Amino acid sequence: QIDSARLWGSIHETAQFGGTAKGGVRRLTLSSEDKQVRDWFRKACENAGLEVHVDALGSQFGLRKGRDMSKLPVGIGSHLDTQPTGGKYDGILGTLGALEVIRTLNDAGIETEAPICIVNWTNEEGSRFAPAMMASAAYVGDFTTDDILSRKDIDGTTVGQALDSIGYRGDKPVGFQKLGCFVELHIEQGPILEAEGKTIGVVDSGQGVLWYDGKISGFESHAGSTPMPLRRDALATLSEIVLAMEAIAKKHGPNAVGTIGEAVIANPSRNVIPGEIAFTMDCRSADGAVMDALDRDLRTAIAEIAARRKVDVKIDLVWRKPPTHFDPKLIAAVENAAKTLGYSSRRITSGAGHDACNLNTIMPAAMVFVPCKDGISHNELEDATQGDCAAGTNVLMHTVLAIAGV
Amino acid sequence: QIDSARLWGSIHETAQFGGTAKGGVRRLTLSSEDKQVRDWFRKACENAGLEVHVDALGSQFGLRKGRDMSKLPVGIGSHLDTQPTGGKYDGILGTLGALEVIRTLNDAGIETEAPICIVNWTNEEGSRFAPAMMASAAYVGDFTTDDILSRKDIDGTTVGQALDSIGYRGDKPVGFQKLGCFVELHIEQGPILEAEGKTIGVVDSGQGVLWYDGKISGFESHAGSTPMPLRRDALATLSEIVLAMEAIAKKHGPNAVGTIGEAVIANPSRNVIPGEIAFTMDCRSADGAVMDALDRDLRTAIAEIAARRKVDVKIDLVWRKPPTHFDPKLIAAVENAAKTLGYSSRRITSGAGHDACNLNTIMPAAMVFVPCKDGISHNELEDATQGDCAAGTNVLMHTVLAIAGV
Ligand SMILES: NC(=O)NCCC(=O)O
Ligand SMILES: NC(=O)NCCC(=O)O
Repeated sequence: QIDSARLWGSIHETAQFGGTAKGGVRRLTLSSEDKQVRDWFRKACENAGLEVHVDALGSQFGLRKGRDMSKLPVGIGSHLDTQPTGGKYDGILGTLGALEVIRTLNDAGIETEAPICIVNWTNEEGSRFAPAMMASAAYVGDFTTDDILSRKDIDGTTVGQALDSIGYRGDKPVGFQKLGCFVELHIEQGPILEAEGKTIGVVDSGQGVLWYDGKISGFESHAGSTPMPLRRDALATLSEIVLAMEAIAKKHGPNAVGTIGEAVIANPSRNVIPGEIAFTMDCRSADGAVMDALDRDLRTAIAEIAARRKVDVKIDLVWRKPPTHFDPKLIAAVENAAKTLGYSSRRITSGAGHDACNLNTIMPAAMVFVPCKDGISHNELEDATQGDCAAGTNVLMHTVLAIAGV
Repeated sequence: QIDSARLWGSIHETAQFGGTAKGGVRRLTLSSEDKQVRDWFRKACENAGLEVHVDALGSQFGLRKGRDMSKLPVGIGSHLDTQPTGGKYDGILGTLGALEVIRTLNDAGIETEAPICIVNWTNEEGSRFAPAMMASAAYVGDFTTDDILSRKDIDGTTVGQALDSIGYRGDKPVGFQKLGCFVELHIEQGPILEAEGKTIGVVDSGQGVLWYDGKISGFESHAGSTPMPLRRDALATLSEIVLAMEAIAKKHGPNAVGTIGEAVIANPSRNVIPGEIAFTMDCRSADGAVMDALDRDLRTAIAEIAARRKVDVKIDLVWRKPPTHFDPKLIAAVENAAKTLGYSSRRITSGAGHDACNLNTIMPAAMVFVPCKDGISHNELEDATQGDCAAGTNVLMHTVLAIAGV
């Protein structure tokens, strides 16, 4: 059994780095707050006797030796970055839970057969730089390191510049640390476990993701003197796209969602009809065929709206992550650990993307979910109980012990 | 006849202050570019022999003596501030046209019975600070000077601070310069004169304006893991409001318009459902009863949308300017001047608000419109011909001579 109070203490101690008045965390990847938590994490890893390395994209790896160093390490961990108005648990539970596993094994003097490597992946959230789960995507070869280093945030700062500015461009090439498998603990970020009174979600699959950048070019004109029929209003166009996406996602539901999270009017003014808007779209489904249908229906709807309103709408697919099907043996290992420990559980699909989804494309991977209050995440009010966090960390530890061998 | 080339030269010389790559002007009120054009205007007034004063809200007054100084001056002028992506003519034609009238009278050695006062009103556009036509509204007593001085732009800078930062908080109290009447020359900013091949618009009325500040409070949550039916999406809510406003304006049309020009998502992120949006609304009609109907229909629609989507929507009416009916005698004077000069003309309603609309509430006022290309305004592509600008300025001059007496 892990030390529930110590885990809880770590979560709340690190929540001060970027902590907000509403009890959430604002810790955008590679920000000064992110540097603070990274420094804390490195020191904690070193104090736990781990050998710590940082790769060229800033991901932190802490290695605990095993009896058989010819075996590939069991990877565990998650991320410490958050959304602009994020919570204290998303990613953090999985990273500090991994640290707690190491601390517990140290205290109990348990040596494993295979080594264990705990990881803090850079930019899981995808809020400052696209795509999400950026560093693990480069790790599995979906993008080159140089490509990722050149991605820009909204101010034009590149990933490379941001890494340098906090001193976290590591000296190890991406992929230097081989892993044999990866298990990630996370809050569910959805309402199912809580609603069904289950403690553990045994994640068997994950939704695929489509990310688009969009731009609407209408025509700026005077709000008072331009008759309604002559307008080419970029915001009215966006409004139709938002509602069309909502209808399309519902039509393909319950197995589909669609969101417009960013929309910026260029040179806004109260008495000017908006002429240009940049926006993003995020569409998901656990079913690849539904993803294709969402893409097709969206493009058709947007083309019709643009033509009717005589505006130009460009959309660019900037990221496509297919649905994930986790490794059956690891899924079973998670399920067994929950059963052995006496926790109620159910199989579940992840609505969110996770680093484990990327790692699953080149190695066996699996995930452990615990409930979060009202399914709320990506919100400062995100909440989870100490008991559930501890339960998930126990399941993580027992899964690791089963895979790594004692 | 005014000097068409000199007028055209002034318009293009001052267009460099805030001139944009697309041939427009970005000269927000009380910005450094606004200071540049104000300095130019002051010097030009002084060179034309005018006595120049600045009031506590930065409006510039240039007085040309008349034979009978017991008579109140005839006021002419407009504004030199622009929209963020504005044109070279909106306001500028009326201000530099007034200057051209003075220069022409000087050259011709014409003395008028009543004095003439040319005015550059502060913040006509209302883009940086609300409301529009701010200084003329204070002049006629719709707002106190202190109230206006405390209005803030989006960065929190007050009108008072902005005036001080460019050195244009004048030493004269607002209203120090009494005027007997006011005549404003302006581009139409709509498509009617051009479509009908008329040179002069004799403005007999102006639309009333409703300005609102709105705020939507939904609930931020995860774009991937939040099922569509559980969302309280602020952007989807805004989208319905935008389309409802469009439908309501069309329903009351052609005599009504409605625009949402600003909308800002708080803490935007691609994979977060927008939780909070601040927005503005601008509704207009030349008919007071239609204005009331617009207000009522909008409030009803918004209440229904908010309740159905379980979000909170607050709207605040921040400005209500009733429709304007200009002074019949001055309207006739403008019409006569056009006829005498041999220009085609028609009566017209102003779709935009103007300082003359404010002045009309305490003195006789009227306006002269000239066509602008495709009716385009509040756009960098705003355009007008040299011939039409000269024609309007001639009508302005002959109207002034008729009122002031030679
Ligand atoms: N787990 C999580 O919130 N990941 C962020 C990436 C995404 O799914 O949008
Ligand atoms: N003339 C003009 O564009 N005025 C700005 C105020 C408004 O009508 O919105």
